[in-house]
This record gives sequence, structure tokens and C-alpha cells, in this order.
Amino acid sequence: MDDLVGQYFEAAVAHLRRAQAEEGEAIERAAELLAEAVAEGRRIFAFGAGHSSLAAQDVVYRAGGLVVVNLLNVPGMTGVNVMPAPLGSALERVSGLATAALDLTPATAGDLLFVISLSGRQVMPVELAQHARARGLRVVGVTSLAYPAQVASGHPSGTFLKDHCDVVLDNKIAVGDGELTHPGAETSFGPVSTIVTSALMQAVVAGAVGRLADRAVQGQGATPPLFRSGNVDGGTDWNAKLMAEHADRIFYAF
Amino acid sequence: MDDLVGQYFEAAVAHLRRAQAEEGEAIERAAELLAEAVAEGRRIFAFGAGHSSLAAQDVVYRAGGLVVVNLLNVPGMTGVNVMPAPLGSALERVSGLATAALDLTPATAGDLLFVISLSGRQVMPVELAQHARARGLRVVGVTSLAYPAQVASGHPSGTFLKDHCDVVLDNKIAVGDGELTHPGAETSFGPVSTIVTSALMQAVVAGAVGRLADRAVQGQGATPPLFRSGNVDGGTDWNAKLMAEHADRIFYAF
Repeated sequence: MDDLVGQYFEAAVAHLRRAQAEEGEAIERAAELLAEAVAEGRRIFAFGAGHSSLAAQDVVYRAGGLVVVNLLNVPGMTGVNVMPAPLGSALERVSGLATAALDLTPATAGDLLFVISLSGRQVMPVELAQHARARGLRVVGVTSLAYPAQVASGHPSGTFLKDHCDVVLDNKIAVGDGELTHPGAETSFGPVSTIVTSALMQAVVAGAVGRLADRAVQGQGATPPLFRSGNVDGGTDWNAKLMAEHADRIFYAF
Repeated sequence: MDDLVGQYFEAAVAHLRRAQAEEGEAIERAAELLAEAVAEGRRIFAFGAGHSSLAAQDVVYRAGGLVVVNLLNVPGMTGVNVMPAPLGSALERVSGLATAALDLTPATAGDLLFVISLSGRQVMPVELAQHARARGLRVVGVTSLAYPAQVASGHPSGTFLKDHCDVVLDNKIAVGDGELTHPGAETSFGPVSTIVTSALMQAVVAGAVGRLADRAVQGQGATPPLFRSGNVDGGTDWNAKLMAEHADRIFYAF
């Protein structure tokens, strides 16, 4: 038996090393946009559909994360708990949902939107990024540039998410999203996209926190508003205080 | 400015390397349980609350994943898109939800449940794992053993998730879940828990697929039922065929 468990970890580490080496500049540019948005009191949203929403949710309402990052929630598209699950995939092809969801938020020119889509080819992420930029938002896209090179866009314009972003973070996941093969398996398996995409998002947040903290040390701004774990003493009170201070930009609680 | 982005990737890679080196045996035992469950036609569920649900959702309805893994969905606890978000945290402390959710599934003795909880200390994961084992299910827990060593259980029994599992996978995440610090930030930041927990879950699936594929090559069983990407030619038809073949064990579609 091959050591598929070991091969899986090797693949995950190799992908993280590649993202670190090749996407560092793009991560820093996205981090600068995020730090600016926090410092200027902008509204900040993150969106992904299906499994691509997992990395978006990973930076929202999160110990060690910024309190001012909101999830752009489109019912039926966040995660895989919609019933039936294939409806989530179908919704990604429906025109109009993206614009409606964004228009129902108070987001306006100068605000920041993260759009995560592995293939970047479906109607939903393309339309959302396009519409957001038309409204003056800044858009950071997290996607795989392997897809535009190999598959057709599902959007009438023929464009992909990457074509409607201020910054693109390429997770470099191969089409099919399986790192392992076996002669007794009829398709590849062992996807690493959630690991790599979460790392890209968390790295952007870390870079933004670093910028805000640098300015705070220099007396040029407030300390970064970071959640503490609810499992440590005083964490819940700390979080409630921060959420109250930033209530005008938080849309996940009363 | 420190290279916090670089430090974040270093922390993520170090955690993956540690999981690979130290949890390999537990991963293989969990993979054996999963392979057996697939081969024997058992029902398979994965549960997590809040951010711990992200790694559960990562192995459900997933390209490169097994079609027979279901999400145990408890409304308000899956992901962070419940409104208000703090309600999700509050629900983890409510007794009775876990048993009700599990009892409403057709899961029975011999079936397999993955329970993911970073702290493993709240009522929900403890009660769920305890109740599942009382019903004869096999339970794989994915948690951090750093928490039982440092924080109190929130369950009346004083026990943790780890105390009610057939196999425990330790993600070794420190209490507080922040890998980075900065003199200008008042709390640690840069969480890697989603990355490490997703890797553990995907490694278990990879190990199980390997076992099933080995047996298939030897003529001792069917090929592992793996989803293909909907973005590759024929992927959607392939997936529909597999879902129909395993309809008696799939609870995320009609």
C-alpha cells in the first residue's frame, strides 16, 4: 500500500510553500487594501459559494481574526448544508443573485469585498465582482488561474473572476482538485484547495494586522481590532467590547 | 515591519509537519474505520460547530471526496452564517440539541461519526460523542488535547470530546488559536486550526480511499465512490450516477 496519508501532507505543504513563494507580493497588496479599509472605517465583506465559502467563513467572527470582517451570506450558497446539496451548485449559475445580495448590504464606494471561487468561472462570482467594482468597491479575488487556462467561462461575457479584481490571489489548484491517484480509484482525490485558500486569506489578515499594529506602535492609529478566543479568561467580554466599538461596521450581530 | 505573512506560512507548515509526524498512526486507524464503514455499507456523518464545521464540510459533497460522507447539520451551528453569530457559540452550550439531531438521522449501531471540536470542552461535542457511542456508533474525534490540559470542561461530567471517541486525532492547536504576536496588537492572531483540521480530515479520507482502492485492485471490493469536479467534462453525470448507486446512504439530496 502506498503511503497516501504521507503523500497528502507532502502535497499540502508543497502547495503552501508555492503560495508563500509566488503569491507573497499579491498577499501584501491585498493586506494593504485590508489595513486601509480597517483604518478608514470602511465596510468589509467576504464571499464564497459552496466549499469556497469555507475559507471566507474562516476569517469571520474568529479568534485571532479582525472583528470588522463580515460574511456576505447568500442563502443556499454558504457551505454545503443546503438541502439538496446540488442546489448550491445550481445557484452559482443563476444571474441576479449576486447583485441582489450585494445591493441589500450597506456596502458603498471605497468598501472592500473578498470573492473566493476556485474555478472563478461561474456566473455568481463573476457577476458579483463585476457589480461590486461598478459600485466602486475594491475587490480581492482568490481563485485558481489554472481554470481560465483550461475551461470555459459560464458567464455570458466569457470572463472570469480574475478579470474583475483589484488584486488576484492565485491558489494554483489544478483543475479537478485532487492531488492523489491510485490504480484502483477511478478519479483523483485528496483535495488541498481549502487548506491553501484558507492560508491565503489568513495570510492577508496577518499582513493587515501587522500594518495596523506597526502604525499603532508609532502612535499613528488604533490597535487592530482582534477577537480573542471565547475559551480563554475574559475573552467573551473583550469581544463584546470590541463589537460594540465597531457596531457601525458589523453586520453579523445586533 | 516583521514578515508576518512569511511567519504565518511557516507556522502552518510546521503544524502540518507535526500532524504528519505525530498523528500518522491515529490517522491510519481512523482511515481503517472509514474504509470499513464504506465497504460495509454503513452510514457516515461528520459534525462540527462554528469554525469547527468548516473541516467537516470540507469532506462532504466534495470533488475528490467520498460520496457517502454526510454532514450532520444542526441548524444555527454549521458555519458562522447564523444571525446573530454569537448564537452559534451559545448553542454549543445547550444540552439536548446533540441527541435530538443524531436521533433524527437513521444512524444506528456500527455507523460512523466524525466529531470535530477545537476545544472539545463544550456541551454539544461531548454530549454528541457520548450519545453516539451509547447507541453503538463508532466515533472519531478531531480536537486539540492542549485544551483539556488548560481549561475546564463545560459539560456536567467534566469530560471532554477526547473521552468519548474510538479514535482521537489531535490537531495540537494551542489555546487561543493564534500563531503570531506583535507589540502593537493586544492579542495573538494568525489561526491555523482550519488548515490543520482540514488536513487531518482529508488525510483520513485519503487513507480510506487507498485501502478501498487496494482491495479493488485485488478484486476484493468495489472501487471507492469518489466525486469528480463539476468543472471537468462528464463530472456532473459521473457524480449523479454514483449518488444514485449509494442513495440509501446519502442524506444530502433527494
